[in-house]
Amino acid sequence: MVRIAVDGMGGDYAPSAIVQGAEWICREDRDVRVILVGNEKAIKPLLKETRGIEIIHTPVEVDMGESPSIALRKKRDSSMGIAFELVKNKEAHGIVTAGNSGAAMAFAIFTLGRIKSVDRPAIATLHPNIKGSISVLIDAGGNVDCKPTHLVQFAIMGDAFARCVLGIPSPKVGVLSNGEEESKGNELTRETHGLLKGLNLNYIGYVEGTDMYNGNADVVVSDGFVGNVALKISEGVADSIIALLKEGIEKKFTRKIGYIFLKDLFSEISRKLDFSEIGGAPLLGVDGVTVICHGKSNGKAIKNAIGMAKSFVEKRLNESIKETISGYDALQKKKEKKRWIIF
Amino acid sequence: MVRIAVDGMGGDYAPSAIVQGAEWICREDRDVRVILVGNEKAIKPLLKETRGIEIIHTPVEVDMGESPSIALRKKRDSSMGIAFELVKNKEAHGIVTAGNSGAAMAFAIFTLGRIKSVDRPAIATLHPNIKGSISVLIDAGGNVDCKPTHLVQFAIMGDAFARCVLGIPSPKVGVLSNGEEESKGNELTRETHGLLKGLNLNYIGYVEGTDMYNGNADVVVSDGFVGNVALKISEGVADSIIALLKEGIEKKFTRKIGYIFLKDLFSEISRKLDFSEIGGAPLLGVDGVTVICHGKSNGKAIKNAIGMAKSFVEKRLNESIKETISGYDALQKKKEKKRWIIF
Repeated sequence: MVRIAVDGMGGDYAPSAIVQGAEWICREDRDVRVILVGNEKAIKPLLKETRGIEIIHTPVEVDMGESPSIALRKKRDSSMGIAFELVKNKEAHGIVTAGNSGAAMAFAIFTLGRIKSVDRPAIATLHPNIKGSISVLIDAGGNVDCKPTHLVQFAIMGDAFARCVLGIPSPKVGVLSNGEEESKGNELTRETHGLLKGLNLNYIGYVEGTDMYNGNADVVVSDGFVGNVALKISEGVADSIIALLKEGIEKKFTRKIGYIFLKDLFSEISRKLDFSEIGGAPLLGVDGVTVICHGKSNGKAIKNAIGMAKSFVEKRLNESIKETISGYDALQKKKEKKRWIIF
Repeated sequence: MVRIAVDGMGGDYAPSAIVQGAEWICREDRDVRVILVGNEKAIKPLLKETRGIEIIHTPVEVDMGESPSIALRKKRDSSMGIAFELVKNKEAHGIVTAGNSGAAMAFAIFTLGRIKSVDRPAIATLHPNIKGSISVLIDAGGNVDCKPTHLVQFAIMGDAFARCVLGIPSPKVGVLSNGEEESKGNELTRETHGLLKGLNLNYIGYVEGTDMYNGNADVVVSDGFVGNVALKISEGVADSIIALLKEGIEKKFTRKIGYIFLKDLFSEISRKLDFSEIGGAPLLGVDGVTVICHGKSNGKAIKNAIGMAKSFVEKRLNESIKETISGYDALQKKKEKKRWIIF
């Protein structure tokens, strides 16, 4: 039985979307137990089925626009704060929140702590690619100004994730850049490139954003600023194309007929582009399974995010990250020691 | 009569696409004269109509993978080098090239020189937005490691471009960031944000990549690394969606029927996404009208790029940039002077 703490009050459609997601996953999967943390006066009336769900009451919430540091100092007893505490105290195996993502990162780092040798935990987003597999973008938003060593840690965590969760034996790891040639890149990517070439990873060099969608790379590494810009623009372009299609179809009667024949294809593609199908994004590098969801998550996204957290627990993701990164750390120290002896 | 020098040998489909583009524009527009620079043995057999076109022969070409500095040192007599010389010597009003873009930037800067007060010329790409207007992304690829003052110069040049060429009276200028809130951004964008707030621009703060497609921003400013990553991922997402549609339609007979009714809409959308409709990207900040095209440019792209260069000449784009940036320069000096007196 896997126990997942869920922030019942976080997200634009909370608590109803959260309650819905919790009910759906518990209906489908008897091996999961959801601990819904939040205001029971708001949650209980929404809850139709209680099997697999327990509620921990708190009237305090972290607001979406609130400063993470203030939330951390003053709202330990919020739905988000308590949910993280449950993981820390081993009362839950993992946590899912669609609340204020800055606050979620802060609570994760300060409540759960960082995995040894990880300086900066990072958000990994998962992208279905046209090869039918999933590519990982890390960091997709947590850390805006990074050093090359941070990007190296992201690469190692992304590699561990792809092996452990996605089952890719030797994930192709690339650095997001403005072109594939070695002459491309900026200061940060060039130094990172040098460091990654020396590691025991299946490092394929610079990649472009599109390699995440065509599956040429399994793990795409970038600082959180570039990663987030890339992520948001992809969503934007997809939305614009869908908007253009909808608008165009509405304009002509014959197109409406055509739409009838293509409706299933459009839904198929929309499903592939829809973040709620994926659920959420794991925060890698903190000492506890943490899944952060889009603020606009609906019931389906929450359901999938809880399922995601459960699978990370079952696949022992955090143990795998710890092992992988400590391996590199040992490697690093050995190298340093050697140098010491030689010179 | 506007005279445009065209690098006849630059680009993946040169010289045939270049010759085609030159012929097409001259057939449609009697006010343009194209000076095709390149190997006449290759060009002449392709040329069906010669009205409006003259050829300047050179057997030397800049290769697509060649180092810009080597091209600049050793290939002044190349099709690209001579085309830039023509602009410098006032024998042409502007230049179009689909060749090695690094070499094109190098030739532009060293042959034409920079406009006073511009430290770094920048590539501006033009994006049709869903409001039916065009948004400008600057820098889309020239300068990877930038300082805040460079981004300020990009903003000023983008503003001048949008007013002068697009006819937008007070262009909305934004800085590309990982979110719209002032708390977002990285070191570079935060400093740039502070500087831009003090200028007499219609500065709207941070924008996301998608604002370039929905028309919320007329000018989107970023360093060349982030701009190029954003640009390439947008193209990649659009291509993936088109590929998914094509693949899906092929799979079922009924969908093929649907496609017949929606074919015109698909072409309409493809046209909107197709860079060849736009033609090329102006390099702003060099002292001469320069349009750089995608290496994969076809005849239509070249035709539109030549038309673009002609309109920049007619609208006196470079004069407008010079005036605008010198205005800010005077402002800056005035401020500095004031400070000097006060302290």
